[in-house]
Amino acid sequence: MGLIGSSIARAVRREKLVNSIVATARSSATRQRIMELNLADKVVGTNEAAVKNADLVIVCVPVGAYGSVAKEISQNLMHGAIVSDVGSVKRSVVRDMAPHLPRHVHFIPAHPVAGTENSGPDAGFAELFYDRWCIITPTENTNKEAIRKLSKFWQKVGAKVEIMTPDHHDRVLAITSHIPHLIAYTILDTAAQISESLKIDILGRVDRSFREFTRIAASDPTMWRDIFLANSDAVFHMLFTFSEHLSKLTRAMRDDDRASLLKQFAHVQALRNSVAHLNQNVSLLEEDVIEINKGTEHRRALAVTTHLPRLIAYTIVGTADGLSQITQSEVLRFSAGGFRDFTSIAASDPNFWRDSILDNKQAVLEMLGRFNEDLLKLTSAMRYNDGNFLFEFFQRMRAVRRGIVERGGDELTIQVDIEVDMYLRRPYSSE
Amino acid sequence: MGLIGSSIARAVRREKLVNSIVATARSSATRQRIMELNLADKVVGTNEAAVKNADLVIVCVPVGAYGSVAKEISQNLMHGAIVSDVGSVKRSVVRDMAPHLPRHVHFIPAHPVAGTENSGPDAGFAELFYDRWCIITPTENTNKEAIRKLSKFWQKVGAKVEIMTPDHHDRVLAITSHIPHLIAYTILDTAAQISESLKIDILGRVDRSFREFTRIAASDPTMWRDIFLANSDAVFHMLFTFSEHLSKLTRAMRDDDRASLLKQFAHVQALRNSVAHLNQNVSLLEEDVIEINKGTEHRRALAVTTHLPRLIAYTIVGTADGLSQITQSEVLRFSAGGFRDFTSIAASDPNFWRDSILDNKQAVLEMLGRFNEDLLKLTSAMRYNDGNFLFEFFQRMRAVRRGIVERGGDELTIQVDIEVDMYLRRPYSSE
Repeated sequence: MGLIGSSIARAVRREKLVNSIVATARSSATRQRIMELNLADKVVGTNEAAVKNADLVIVCVPVGAYGSVAKEISQNLMHGAIVSDVGSVKRSVVRDMAPHLPRHVHFIPAHPVAGTENSGPDAGFAELFYDRWCIITPTENTNKEAIRKLSKFWQKVGAKVEIMTPDHHDRVLAITSHIPHLIAYTILDTAAQISESLKIDILGRVDRSFREFTRIAASDPTMWRDIFLANSDAVFHMLFTFSEHLSKLTRAMRDDDRASLLKQFAHVQALRNSVAHLNQNVSLLEEDVIEINKGTEHRRALAVTTHLPRLIAYTIVGTADGLSQITQSEVLRFSAGGFRDFTSIAASDPNFWRDSILDNKQAVLEMLGRFNEDLLKLTSAMRYNDGNFLFEFFQRMRAVRRGIVERGGDELTIQVDIEVDMYLRRPYSSE
Repeated sequence: MGLIGSSIARAVRREKLVNSIVATARSSATRQRIMELNLADKVVGTNEAAVKNADLVIVCVPVGAYGSVAKEISQNLMHGAIVSDVGSVKRSVVRDMAPHLPRHVHFIPAHPVAGTENSGPDAGFAELFYDRWCIITPTENTNKEAIRKLSKFWQKVGAKVEIMTPDHHDRVLAITSHIPHLIAYTILDTAAQISESLKIDILGRVDRSFREFTRIAASDPTMWRDIFLANSDAVFHMLFTFSEHLSKLTRAMRDDDRASLLKQFAHVQALRNSVAHLNQNVSLLEEDVIEINKGTEHRRALAVTTHLPRLIAYTIVGTADGLSQITQSEVLRFSAGGFRDFTSIAASDPNFWRDSILDNKQAVLEMLGRFNEDLLKLTSAMRYNDGNFLFEFFQRMRAVRRGIVERGGDELTIQVDIEVDMYLRRPYSSE
């Protein structure tokens, strides 16, 4: 029982939706903590024991673990029970769980698009799902009454429910969530390497927007390793599309095509601001203006912490919009807080950033190249199913990201958020 | 009846393999030319008429046309006839033809991996398939005797026969043929743009290796439009893998990692030379050494015509080898003459090219960036199924390529080939 499971328990308790909650967890320490927090009426030692007599079973584990859990619980499921999940990838969960589940249960995969970068039973809170999407991916044959029941459950804990196919879900999430995470991890890597080679503590001096851009890189390495391995084909597809969009901006920058850059930036800014839940005012940061003239090293530092993130943010909003046009579904709608933070810099002044980026063109092109090279190390690991590499990399980047926070300044963000955003406790959706 | 069909007819005549050849073609001019060349015993006006009483039907059309031809011939096929093809993509041909063919015929897809950049019935010759691979992709249920017959047919016209699945075929050909063509087209585009922006006739002054590298871009635009649309997913997959390999070289170059560059170059050189039919001696070209010091413009010109092609050639041989390790199949084995020309520059001296490329690093990095941006325009067209864009682009690049040949010097290559290669008339395999 981690962030999602404990948040469900808290919301269910608050809304008095069920008679009894039974929970389990792998470690006895966590099981004890669940009791201390009074998150369940009963805490049992195994998954098999947990599902006995349950009308609704919600499996909340990393995406790579659903198959084995389904196998464990299959014998003890009650006739007519609804079995659901919270996995961030839906095709793999269906593939892994469905073969093990008996025909007498209703299997309805679901994904509440909500989260924070924190984990464990202490990290949860009852409001996590409030006004967030919960995407349900039943098949055509799924019992309609069971779908209605599960939808109602998620609505009662505050979520908006949307139904789509697992395939569509995985593509939408690839662009609105998985690729932003991949990019945040990668840009920390690139920035850390540049920091080292320049012998300047770049990461100790990043501005607020870089901190927002990389906040999602603090997320759980196990969870993200599993997501990238499970959804690699959709991520590859979307990453290619993303590269195609980015290359148009890159070429315009390379050729000093001021009109084209401005047009593309302004289009994305308008697009982003048109999505209500992404709307956010972003102030220009004086430090960018000041530091731009301090020689090659500062130009490179600024390129990786300020200009590159903006180019990427502009690109990813455009890519999500492009996907909307193909799928006839408003993809940006399903992006939650994480996407908001990640792309907030795309809401800033197109004229200002066009000029800043062109002013620093050579360094930005270098950082774009480095970023791409670093990104391709990760896609290569995904291709060869190298989970250890991914886990270690994500863990290392989480440490880098925590270092940024420790070196100060992140409080500023939180103070700003308090005023503008009542959902302070979930600064982003990690899934 | 074009290059492949007329070559089959010529080889079949020479070997006296059949009693009678019936041919057809869309245009009456081509039908008349077939008779003038005595390529068939009978030339008929339609595909329906052509297949009547045929024991063996080999459909030779662009990849996008197989479905409609299968539909046309389906009613007139003889009981027990073998129906085959020569398409460069196998999954799409199976998908398009199989549903239309009656159960009483043996459908055995095939791909003779041979060709030249020329087309039409005059372009064919009886030796085209000699010592080339013909890849046959039957299903598990295909009649064994029919497979044996078709295999024997291809062996009699000189080919070596290999059996694999359509899926495997399409991945192998993506890296050994389709991506080289995509790259050759793209690099001509990049070079032509640079030529224009520098106001230097770069393309009139390219060396022999650039001419070899881009020869395949003279191929038939319709054929290649269809191939890229039909095999886009395998091409995307392989292009991503290619980018991952290229990014390792790029990073080594960026960081002046001389040892790593040399190691990677030398590995590929050894790899390429170990494949007997790709072996080719390449002499260093003095002009590269001389021109390298002539200022920024020449540096950029050299980067796009000399250094970038080498980086790419090294990369693609490495990628094909990497694929071999995954598929347990010697992928490089199936690459024919086109791949040989395309990658011949990877056989040159690793030390020399390491130093030349590092000497010209900034310009090479710029051209790599531009190349990548130009390439992504093509992948975007493939993604959105924009056949017109691809056709027009390929046609334009064919004209650029022909301009290079007209501006002289390509004779040199042919003279060299006469001495070392008896298969002069098929300088490359286009499929």
